[in-house]
Amino acid sequence: MNSADLENYQTGDAAAALANNALPAGFGLYGVRSGISSVEGKKDLALFWSFRPARAAGVFTKNLVKAAPVRLCQDRLKKGKAFRGILINSGCANACTGARGRKDAEESLQFLAEGMSIRSGELLAASTGVIGRFLPMDRMSVGVAGLLDAVEGNAASVEDAVRAIMTTDTRPKAAAERFDFGGIPYRVWGCAKGAGMIHPNMATMLSVVLTDAGLPQKVLRAALRKAADRSFNRVTVDGDTSTNDSLFLLANGAVKDFAAPPKKFVELFQAALNRVCLSLAVQIAADGEGATRTAWIFIEGARTEAAAAKLAATVATSPLFKTALNGADPNWGRVLAAMGRAGVPFDPDKTEVKFGDVVVYDQGTKTAYDEAALHELLKKDRVVVRADLRAGKASSFAVTCDFSKEYVSINADYTT
Amino acid sequence: MNSADLENYQTGDAAAALANNALPAGFGLYGVRSGISSVEGKKDLALFWSFRPARAAGVFTKNLVKAAPVRLCQDRLKKGKAFRGILINSGCANACTGARGRKDAEESLQFLAEGMSIRSGELLAASTGVIGRFLPMDRMSVGVAGLLDAVEGNAASVEDAVRAIMTTDTRPKAAAERFDFGGIPYRVWGCAKGAGMIHPNMATMLSVVLTDAGLPQKVLRAALRKAADRSFNRVTVDGDTSTNDSLFLLANGAVKDFAAPPKKFVELFQAALNRVCLSLAVQIAADGEGATRTAWIFIEGARTEAAAAKLAATVATSPLFKTALNGADPNWGRVLAAMGRAGVPFDPDKTEVKFGDVVVYDQGTKTAYDEAALHELLKKDRVVVRADLRAGKASSFAVTCDFSKEYVSINADYTT
Repeated sequence: MNSADLENYQTGDAAAALANNALPAGFGLYGVRSGISSVEGKKDLALFWSFRPARAAGVFTKNLVKAAPVRLCQDRLKKGKAFRGILINSGCANACTGARGRKDAEESLQFLAEGMSIRSGELLAASTGVIGRFLPMDRMSVGVAGLLDAVEGNAASVEDAVRAIMTTDTRPKAAAERFDFGGIPYRVWGCAKGAGMIHPNMATMLSVVLTDAGLPQKVLRAALRKAADRSFNRVTVDGDTSTNDSLFLLANGAVKDFAAPPKKFVELFQAALNRVCLSLAVQIAADGEGATRTAWIFIEGARTEAAAAKLAATVATSPLFKTALNGADPNWGRVLAAMGRAGVPFDPDKTEVKFGDVVVYDQGTKTAYDEAALHELLKKDRVVVRADLRAGKASSFAVTCDFSKEYVSINADYTT
Repeated sequence: MNSADLENYQTGDAAAALANNALPAGFGLYGVRSGISSVEGKKDLALFWSFRPARAAGVFTKNLVKAAPVRLCQDRLKKGKAFRGILINSGCANACTGARGRKDAEESLQFLAEGMSIRSGELLAASTGVIGRFLPMDRMSVGVAGLLDAVEGNAASVEDAVRAIMTTDTRPKAAAERFDFGGIPYRVWGCAKGAGMIHPNMATMLSVVLTDAGLPQKVLRAALRKAADRSFNRVTVDGDTSTNDSLFLLANGAVKDFAAPPKKFVELFQAALNRVCLSLAVQIAADGEGATRTAWIFIEGARTEAAAAKLAATVATSPLFKTALNGADPNWGRVLAAMGRAGVPFDPDKTEVKFGDVVVYDQGTKTAYDEAALHELLKKDRVVVRADLRAGKASSFAVTCDFSKEYVSINADYTT
């Protein structure tokens, strides 16, 4: 997508993507209440199940402090070739829990594997919630038993599963895409739970993407990495990650399994995967804790895409920019000041800055814009900020949300 | 100072340092109302004056986007050998104002130089306030005329000057130290205006330090850089700076001027300068916008001081840590998660984390601490967080403040 496409980008119909018939063929999703989450009555344990062995890929947090399930998945994805499901709980991150945390994660999967009569190694796991607490294994057993009952009773529900992985999200996040190849339709579907703020370093970002196309693991890995770089990594700073961030892709080949997929097929699959991931990433941004609006920051005319991405991400994470966005304050000085400390060389005197289509800064100084009109423009749900460095042809972008009093409320008293 | 000294560090008596008799010999401070600040009646223009030619040094923002007065000072300090004063306005940052901004800064100093019958090149300037607005030169002339009247009328007032440079600070910040050498007392005095948040990248940090010791410019430069690294740069992330941050040192030799100062004298001067800068930096942290408490983060057992400093600064700037601090929430998981994304290698399983004297995390997992007692401990004005990496002998620290709803209020609607 080019910058004009991105600017007009719509996240699609998340509600429609929550319908059971939006799922790719051969998958079943289940969500139950285990009691791990302290939010009364909230579903907190989900199973993403493939009725046939699927190939899998994952992208995980770069944080040095990795939660137990993250380490487990990294190990299993290195060795394993076929996977059947992913078990995800909310309410407890199982992070900073040492050897006991790893054992707890393994035991949880063991319970489930026994009930489903598969090898435990065919399962993956993720957790989200408070750091530093052990998984309450009694509740986990209750939850896994509930999932087994749901599978037995054919009580699959996309919405139950998607809601079960939520923490402070105010709404479920899902996206569905399809593409046709050789007259046959293939589906790519995904869901996500949001980060505290938009940053994965602020709280855990979890996402599961499913497809009924069948592709070799090597192709899946490359495709997922590529999609993440243009989506989830554009609503965050590269490397700025929580202990638990996990993005999974399961491809079960229920429609067709390609041992050596045609180039065109891979392209179509990549495009659908990119759209799903971008939609989920933007839904996360829009639902950032306490967020009232999003801002899309486009950096253009850069020498390299990496430089543009760094500049966009630095603006996107500046508390001063984010508080100004909350107040619909056209404070382009904070945009420039953030760019100036990004560690990327550019010439402020050559740079142009726009809010929407209004040039607010050029030739080293402000322009004669209408401040009141700009204030109105910034009251919209989506604000576009654009900086042209006039130094090259590369561009990139970042999506962020505003920083509100509500954010402070949510985060000042999380564990207690 | 070692970490135990720092932990018990007191900022000294800022009120006493505002008395006129706290100033080093041969300086006069003046503060008047020019009307540049939109805060009704607030004094907004200050002159820091030396009655005899002084040597000067400066440390300035590393931001690529540098305000006009910063560029001017960098040029003048490269060429000039003797300086008489610094003119500082609040209410307008004169940043992102292009060639006109530079001309405005030069003209302001020209007015003042003519009135004081000196060369304009002997003056320095700083500005703080909103970015992207031109200095209202009519008001600047009114203000400079007011300063000339004050000098003429012997109306020197330390407090007027210190208050004139404030923006969102809730209290004036000053520190005074003395040292004796050869039976003669020398003074080192400083004042500062605070940053929005504690970070200089969040709003402008300005500081002026004065001494009646006389030292060669080369010695002053090295001493000021050293003092800044252990003070202002410990309440911020290195390189993360606003458009206007400026730290000045004027040494007028009114007590004695050393062409080749004895080593012992330089050591005593450096120690006094360090204490003044650390006091001011900590006062800025404690008065961060909306701050209710400060946290001192000590990283010990690191392989290098730079690594320890990076880890401390990453925790100090984490919005999740800062909101937890606001809620007196003993959320050590956020401390570890921030350290994990600092880009510095360490082994989380070997690291110990303490709040005050209470070990909360060790051997890869939480300890059996009393959560309620810890919550009470974190309600204090000053919270100490300590992480021992057990990997080496180097250490460093960072000082930060909490992140409150009040911070959002102050910053959501700044220009409009």
